[in-house]
Amino acid sequence: MDEQGIIQNVFQTKDTLYQTKLKEAQASDKFVELEDGQYFLPGFIDLHVHAPQWPQAGIALDEPLNKWLDECTFPLEAKYQDSTFAQTVYQDLVKNLLARGTITVLYFATVHLEASLALAEICAKQGQRGLVGKVVMDHPDMNPDFYRDASTQQALTDTEEFIVAVKELGKNVSQGVYPVITPRFVPSCTDEGLAGLGQLAEKYHVHVQSHCSEGQWEHDHVKERFGKSDTEVLRDFGLLTEKSVMAHCNFINEKDGEIFVETGTAVAHCPISNAYFANGVIPIKRLKEQGVEIGLGTDISGGFSPSLWDNIKQAVMSSRMLEDGVDVTCAQETRGVPDSRISVIEAFSLATQGGGEALSLPIGVIAKGYACDVQVIDMNATGASLSGFGVFNEPAEQLQKLLYLATPANIKQVWVQGKLVHEKY
Amino acid sequence: MDEQGIIQNVFQTKDTLYQTKLKEAQASDKFVELEDGQYFLPGFIDLHVHAPQWPQAGIALDEPLNKWLDECTFPLEAKYQDSTFAQTVYQDLVKNLLARGTITVLYFATVHLEASLALAEICAKQGQRGLVGKVVMDHPDMNPDFYRDASTQQALTDTEEFIVAVKELGKNVSQGVYPVITPRFVPSCTDEGLAGLGQLAEKYHVHVQSHCSEGQWEHDHVKERFGKSDTEVLRDFGLLTEKSVMAHCNFINEKDGEIFVETGTAVAHCPISNAYFANGVIPIKRLKEQGVEIGLGTDISGGFSPSLWDNIKQAVMSSRMLEDGVDVTCAQETRGVPDSRISVIEAFSLATQGGGEALSLPIGVIAKGYACDVQVIDMNATGASLSGFGVFNEPAEQLQKLLYLATPANIKQVWVQGKLVHEKY
Ligand SMILES: [Zn+2]
Ligand SMILES: [Zn+2]
Repeated sequence: MDEQGIIQNVFQTKDTLYQTKLKEAQASDKFVELEDGQYFLPGFIDLHVHAPQWPQAGIALDEPLNKWLDECTFPLEAKYQDSTFAQTVYQDLVKNLLARGTITVLYFATVHLEASLALAEICAKQGQRGLVGKVVMDHPDMNPDFYRDASTQQALTDTEEFIVAVKELGKNVSQGVYPVITPRFVPSCTDEGLAGLGQLAEKYHVHVQSHCSEGQWEHDHVKERFGKSDTEVLRDFGLLTEKSVMAHCNFINEKDGEIFVETGTAVAHCPISNAYFANGVIPIKRLKEQGVEIGLGTDISGGFSPSLWDNIKQAVMSSRMLEDGVDVTCAQETRGVPDSRISVIEAFSLATQGGGEALSLPIGVIAKGYACDVQVIDMNATGASLSGFGVFNEPAEQLQKLLYLATPANIKQVWVQGKLVHEKY
Repeated sequence: MDEQGIIQNVFQTKDTLYQTKLKEAQASDKFVELEDGQYFLPGFIDLHVHAPQWPQAGIALDEPLNKWLDECTFPLEAKYQDSTFAQTVYQDLVKNLLARGTITVLYFATVHLEASLALAEICAKQGQRGLVGKVVMDHPDMNPDFYRDASTQQALTDTEEFIVAVKELGKNVSQGVYPVITPRFVPSCTDEGLAGLGQLAEKYHVHVQSHCSEGQWEHDHVKERFGKSDTEVLRDFGLLTEKSVMAHCNFINEKDGEIFVETGTAVAHCPISNAYFANGVIPIKRLKEQGVEIGLGTDISGGFSPSLWDNIKQAVMSSRMLEDGVDVTCAQETRGVPDSRISVIEAFSLATQGGGEALSLPIGVIAKGYACDVQVIDMNATGASLSGFGVFNEPAEQLQKLLYLATPANIKQVWVQGKLVHEKY
């Protein structure tokens, strides 16, 4: 890799230049030689995290969504008015994500300008590639009095100020930090708010994120308010661009899928969260075949886990439950959706390559021209060894075993764009 | 607790005898005082493990079931003819399960008498409460030539010899090891084999385990062979008793459920495995309401994870996916099964109290008369702290957070019947 941490070339032992390049590398202070049972994996890319909800991870998931939001989530997010509280939580969260191999994160912060900026600064400092959005929720009837933007105008002014400040911050951050335009979801925003954010997207060419057609309520509510689908509404407000990522999208149909393809918008699939709040499984395989860009997200704290490792496994299991159906009292041929399963290797590629494509950044693949973002996995870690006992030792088998069985104890090091940012305690 | 590791009493700070009893306890060499953020949880009870499949955990789960069995599982199980190989794998497995807080395990071994005995001995030695079955698969047309019992008579003789030997071994094992009568599943056994095992169950009053109505194929095959349900067949051969545990049972109907209740037979629910091989979700909530005893199993290696922690979470998620349905192109009221969800606390109780009831043993609860089986959970473990950040600190919230977010790094110690068997490295 070069001084900026970009991979310049990948050599194999059979290449003629291999020995020369090996000697050059050995002379560097960033030379890493793997032991037996250790592997480089691309760093993970988490396309959907609500950073302020980290304290709530795992809590109250048995409550109905409206109670979960009104009594837990919104009161919690309102606390980030206090920037000291924000600092404490955000430092802990970024550290936890890095320790799980998550190198790039697309974050929702809160409505607060100062605390949202603090999150971008913490990412910059801890060496994580953070894409951060100050959340907009300006609709006076759809948000609680104690937690929303003061006005539509204030929401837009704060968003623009946030974009400018994070762009400035990013100039001195080698791995990159980026501002993201972030309407919470269509129901929580006014028409003027959505239109204004669309204009900012055009003016600054920055990333855009929101939720789209997550659950039955949202899907139906938007159709009633606008007479068109969530996807169409977002597009018509100028919010679907090559740099847009929409969380969940469980209820998008084939026509919506076409709009995703045309605009270059990506889906952030959050399988753990979806089991709780989405009322159905998104047909990943069909959308991939349609050409939609798809990556993975934890959706902390709608999803309890800070780990994309866990979400890779759940993406596989949910896809199989979609294929097989769930209700055994229905006939087999009527209860599922044939040809829906994805393999664990395909799910792994969503968490890496898929995330890079979604964000339109050169990340997620170990190849020339990509950022050198890697996690060093140790299958022989003390107290956490993963053995095939001499029976299953093919590379593909080792990869399956580590994807399914590794725990944070197997993540020895994490390097972001050539900088060591985490080493196992 | 007494000398045998049985809990004699549980005192609370408000009890009048508390100070006296505290002083008595402090004088013991088994006194454990928890620090802030540490908790005792009951040890977990895993009702379904194929011990020989441990090397295969996480491997080839994308293959169809018949290929997975014929090309991976059966050739692997055949290797346990070699007792040295068996020793190596079983020692590693028992250690791994203990490190995840699994104190009691209901094991399928293989058809081999010697290797099955080795598993019981390893449990005894490492301090795990093992219930072990030598597997019977005597049907010449339904099993591969390279891996089955030599004959029905041999299968029955070996099973009886195994029962006698493990009963003898158990006499000197404080936490207990137990023999289990183990027809693999109805399709792999002859009528004579099943009848003979039923007679052994009556003669020795030992535990019985098998698979029951796991997937669509098994369910339909048994109906065709016998003209009755899997449950009815097992009952009619004398294999459903108070000490019987049947794995999966996804396709049992209400009438089958009644037979489970009448006979005292329990279900081993294996939610991770079921996502791959069961073609549907078992309606846990309905069966519980019907009075069926239910515990949890990992089903290594149909389930990739050796952890009941992971299966607790998946039990919750699968129950919610059953309730909500999966195919979003169906109308909401037709796609799921209303009132199917279980809470994470209910899933936790399946892994503890439910397992104890299933096995008819005084385990799984921290209360007078129960074995002192506990895991010490540390929410402040170095590099693995789980914080509510001062917002979510109620006991119920802490329990939810640790059930959802703890990793093996949070399991500080494991005590089986008052003996320390695992301490974090
Ligand atoms: Zn979200
Ligand atoms: Zn099984």
